[in-house]
Amino acid sequence: MTLLAERTETLTTLGSALRRALDGAFADVRAAGRESFPADNLLRDPTLGVEASRDWVFARLRELTEAGFGSTGLPRAAGDAPDPLGAVTTFELLAHGDLSVTIKSGVQFGLFGGAVANLGTEWHHDTYLGDIAALRLPGCFAMTELGHGSDVASLETTITFLPGQDAFEVDTPTPAATKAYIGNAARDGKLAVVFGQLVVAGERHGVHAVLVPLRDPAGDLLPGVHAADQGHKGGLLGVDNGTLAFDHVRVPRRMLLDRYGGVAADGGYHSSIDNPNRRFFTMLGTLVRGRVCIAAGAGIAARRALSIAVRYGLRRRQFPAPGRPDGVLLLDYLTHQRRLLPLVARSYALGFAQNELTAALVAVQGGSEHTERDARELETRAAGLKAVTTWFANAAIQEAREACGGAGYLSANQLTGLRGDADIFATFEGDNTVLLQLVTKALLTDYRQAWSGLDRGGLVQATARVVGGTVLERTAANLVVERLVASVRRRPEETTLVDRGWHAWMFEERERHSLESLARRMRAAGRAAGDSFEAFNALGDHVGFVARAHLERVTLEAFIAGIAACPDPEARPVLERLCSLYALGSIGADRAWFQEHNRLSSGRAKALGEQVNQLCRELRPHALGLVEGLGIPEGWLGAAILQD
Amino acid sequence: MTLLAERTETLTTLGSALRRALDGAFADVRAAGRESFPADNLLRDPTLGVEASRDWVFARLRELTEAGFGSTGLPRAAGDAPDPLGAVTTFELLAHGDLSVTIKSGVQFGLFGGAVANLGTEWHHDTYLGDIAALRLPGCFAMTELGHGSDVASLETTITFLPGQDAFEVDTPTPAATKAYIGNAARDGKLAVVFGQLVVAGERHGVHAVLVPLRDPAGDLLPGVHAADQGHKGGLLGVDNGTLAFDHVRVPRRMLLDRYGGVAADGGYHSSIDNPNRRFFTMLGTLVRGRVCIAAGAGIAARRALSIAVRYGLRRRQFPAPGRPDGVLLLDYLTHQRRLLPLVARSYALGFAQNELTAALVAVQGGSEHTERDARELETRAAGLKAVTTWFANAAIQEAREACGGAGYLSANQLTGLRGDADIFATFEGDNTVLLQLVTKALLTDYRQAWSGLDRGGLVQATARVVGGTVLERTAANLVVERLVASVRRRPEETTLVDRGWHAWMFEERERHSLESLARRMRAAGRAAGDSFEAFNALGDHVGFVARAHLERVTLEAFIAGIAACPDPEARPVLERLCSLYALGSIGADRAWFQEHNRLSSGRAKALGEQVNQLCRELRPHALGLVEGLGIPEGWLGAAILQD
Repeated sequence: MTLLAERTETLTTLGSALRRALDGAFADVRAAGRESFPADNLLRDPTLGVEASRDWVFARLRELTEAGFGSTGLPRAAGDAPDPLGAVTTFELLAHGDLSVTIKSGVQFGLFGGAVANLGTEWHHDTYLGDIAALRLPGCFAMTELGHGSDVASLETTITFLPGQDAFEVDTPTPAATKAYIGNAARDGKLAVVFGQLVVAGERHGVHAVLVPLRDPAGDLLPGVHAADQGHKGGLLGVDNGTLAFDHVRVPRRMLLDRYGGVAADGGYHSSIDNPNRRFFTMLGTLVRGRVCIAAGAGIAARRALSIAVRYGLRRRQFPAPGRPDGVLLLDYLTHQRRLLPLVARSYALGFAQNELTAALVAVQGGSEHTERDARELETRAAGLKAVTTWFANAAIQEAREACGGAGYLSANQLTGLRGDADIFATFEGDNTVLLQLVTKALLTDYRQAWSGLDRGGLVQATARVVGGTVLERTAANLVVERLVASVRRRPEETTLVDRGWHAWMFEERERHSLESLARRMRAAGRAAGDSFEAFNALGDHVGFVARAHLERVTLEAFIAGIAACPDPEARPVLERLCSLYALGSIGADRAWFQEHNRLSSGRAKALGEQVNQLCRELRPHALGLVEGLGIPEGWLGAAILQD
Repeated sequence: MTLLAERTETLTTLGSALRRALDGAFADVRAAGRESFPADNLLRDPTLGVEASRDWVFARLRELTEAGFGSTGLPRAAGDAPDPLGAVTTFELLAHGDLSVTIKSGVQFGLFGGAVANLGTEWHHDTYLGDIAALRLPGCFAMTELGHGSDVASLETTITFLPGQDAFEVDTPTPAATKAYIGNAARDGKLAVVFGQLVVAGERHGVHAVLVPLRDPAGDLLPGVHAADQGHKGGLLGVDNGTLAFDHVRVPRRMLLDRYGGVAADGGYHSSIDNPNRRFFTMLGTLVRGRVCIAAGAGIAARRALSIAVRYGLRRRQFPAPGRPDGVLLLDYLTHQRRLLPLVARSYALGFAQNELTAALVAVQGGSEHTERDARELETRAAGLKAVTTWFANAAIQEAREACGGAGYLSANQLTGLRGDADIFATFEGDNTVLLQLVTKALLTDYRQAWSGLDRGGLVQATARVVGGTVLERTAANLVVERLVASVRRRPEETTLVDRGWHAWMFEERERHSLESLARRMRAAGRAAGDSFEAFNALGDHVGFVARAHLERVTLEAFIAGIAACPDPEARPVLERLCSLYALGSIGADRAWFQEHNRLSSGRAKALGEQVNQLCRELRPHALGLVEGLGIPEGWLGAAILQD
């Protein structure tokens, strides 16, 4: 039964318009989702222990699956049309509630089901997808090993073809090869997608995935399969993470997920992709949806926390002041505004960037035409936004917790639970630090390609093309931004601090210059004598800076495009201020860099703080609308401090 | 029974010398504490629920109390010599184990017992201190109210004298006056120190404290006392926080803790302090020890986390590289060094600052002569270090968690539990944001006093005196630092980046200039027409900056003094590098400010990053010694990832 109150959410006109703008191209889908989502059993009792949490989560996931939420986007059988948009928006909706349910759903339908769908072929689809989608066959995505987390290429598990037996033997040769942190492994998983090195007649063909049954219908482990419970964690208590090890476990040949590489009955290895490296990355690339979903879920978690803290700041008074005998509203303190409003602005910014990422996923996985370059850009963008959004979520939830004082620490107010659950988002589906390295690596590849055809004299133009053209062509705001930047390029310091052209120019300069200088240092490192590892190792922080600079630019441009698409006269000026607050926050955080690279005078740098203050003051009267716009229905927040 | 392994810790010679240096003046006390502390039951099972955690924590606290740890520093009866050093070092030792035990101990012996000792008089001491110290009388420190957290002066609870009845009536007049987040309130507390407005014959005398019995020996609430359990929290599950409300509860007159203000049998109010404001701050001032302890405990929590992460980084390999076929040790990645080593350096820095704070507490509360100024400076320093150290602890634990990847998320590896427990340290015993405001307020008062005797022309000299003299006279390194600064003042940019004189000059300039300009803006705000709240409100971020700048200087100078006191030829150069890493981290974080205020050229600012890299490289070979020096015995870390 759904509570009526949750459906009759009354929004201010500003909140309603902002929500529509932030929901963007997916506004109707998302609104419909909010309308139909079963929300009366949204949050888990924080006092439940590990086993009880797992029980509750499994039951809740079953309930959601039966209501049509959960397996959305997963084909039921071979030939079904893919629905990446449904997958992402459903994941987002789930992230409005208990995050263990969200992640358990992601493990089952996204990772496990997704691997069967994307890496398997017709027999796998017809045999398993129906049961997976209906949650009759809970399963695992067994990639990570104790000794090998980010370094998937070094996995040690072996999948060895047994000639004449039409079978493979799956084995865990060392303790470091034990699969670890695997959701569904400790308790519920019946079947696993196991990643390992495929060995045929003594020859290694790189990482492949094979289906291995784990437990019989009664839940007992099958012979040769070892599973251990990894027990209590910092959050996500309802997800049964565990380890898996295989002692020469034999499975029929057809269990190999052979879309990109398989073994014929006669023992011949075949693959549609000759280059083993490309094959590896193609297989991993199909998993990009997981990162898109995690970024989306982290964004929602941040919005929930910020909604709670801002709404609390609009009720809570502390310290009487002249003209305010009953105490000052927390959100009337400039320090409090500075704690929360820039995070709200960034939440909008990342939301617009997420919309573009979701659109890119739909373009690549939705069945329409796309190039290999589209797919690679999607992977880069997904890796990068996953990293920045999950880090942002943790920082935002923590700030929200502290902004609610002691009340923020009570589990009844949801913030500490959110914080504990979202924490691991920074690590799983790719460690954030490693993901940023992937982003920069991709940018350097683009840069090198653009540069390779030119002589030395053409370097500057090449850089301009890479940043101003090739990379940019994917963002919707391309032309708008180019025009904005052109208008300020000659005299950037003669604009106001809220000039969008100046923001765009600054963001572009930060990316262009840092990428260009990194490329130069990389070439020098490649030529250097001595320990080549140390030569590249020395560039670590520069690598991270470039990735962040890139993602900031992409995010700003998504925000600009989002504003351009908003027709509402009340919402637009508010969005403009939010965008300025986001942009100045980003410029302000790197204002040392901008000064060091002659892109910002010290006088102008000093003025940034007061401009941020001014934007906070201007946005303060709209605070309620701002959080309504974030899209979390008030009745779903579940924070006790908001309920009296 | 104590495990032998915990006592036969084998340290490198460097680790041993660093530990002695960081333990400083209290090295012997701390070493003896580590030797004798009952450490075989140190950590709580993370799967225990709320009630089981409370049971375990109470039992553990009883065990520690019986072993002589717990109530150290609390007098047993009137006339006992105070032992603030014992109190702080015992709190530190407790923080090596389950933090619920630490905080429960702090509630019982520090806050509850401390209030009876410091605010009460002979009868209270003789009647209650023995039972409190022996844990026979668990009690509460009931200050915070639902509607009044940081704003203690606005408490609404009333303590009304009943003429002719030799009694007070304690009452909770509104829901907002309900005491909240009170440790021991939900379950164990039998007696409470209740803070409220003292009312005698209709006249209010401000906040006082009175003892109110809560429960009978069977644990049932007494008539008129309402307590509610605040249940599950983000951490500290073993502490039974709850709310308390009083419905016209009557207590005998002698229950008022009347050291600073009391009511005679005839109903006459008397106090040794005439000024109500001064009386209020004197009463609150006696509670400074709590903040000193929280800062100390947060420092230990950070050290535990960094010890785990650095030791893990010395075992864990990932990604093969040229010359490293088995993978690169995590701590050999410069990015990993940059994540952890600056935090280790800051941990040392704050440790030295904490030593000075503890020494100041001993000077003020240890029974020897001290001035009111000494007491006020102690309060300022305690407030400030509590804020920066607790924030640092949360950031350091989080970085340590992420640096351990998925393993960091398993409760068996201790990091998420530490993170959840330490989180609230940023809020309780004074919200950090508010505490920084207190620090700046005190600095402005000093500044105004130094300035008031001079004409306008003398302003610059006055500032120099305030920062270079009066405020500095409390730090041990005063003369050393003055000499260092003098040597670089004329040509600061001609030094190397690791020149200590340059560091000291930069830290001093940051504090001096920001304080001076804030004072100017404050005066202007005071004269401004219009809403005076908004005039001061606009200065919020400047206020926070000044406090941080002050605390950074104090911390650097403590580090310099700590190095000066270290005789070990192996440890000294390592400490010098750690100090440089700390100093450059601080300068680097504010390098935009330094450029904007012409204290740093852009060329020099750009060179900071490479110097930090270089220091990380130089410290890397000493990583094990560095964490040994942090003083947490390896056997006490309890992290499963370090145990095979």
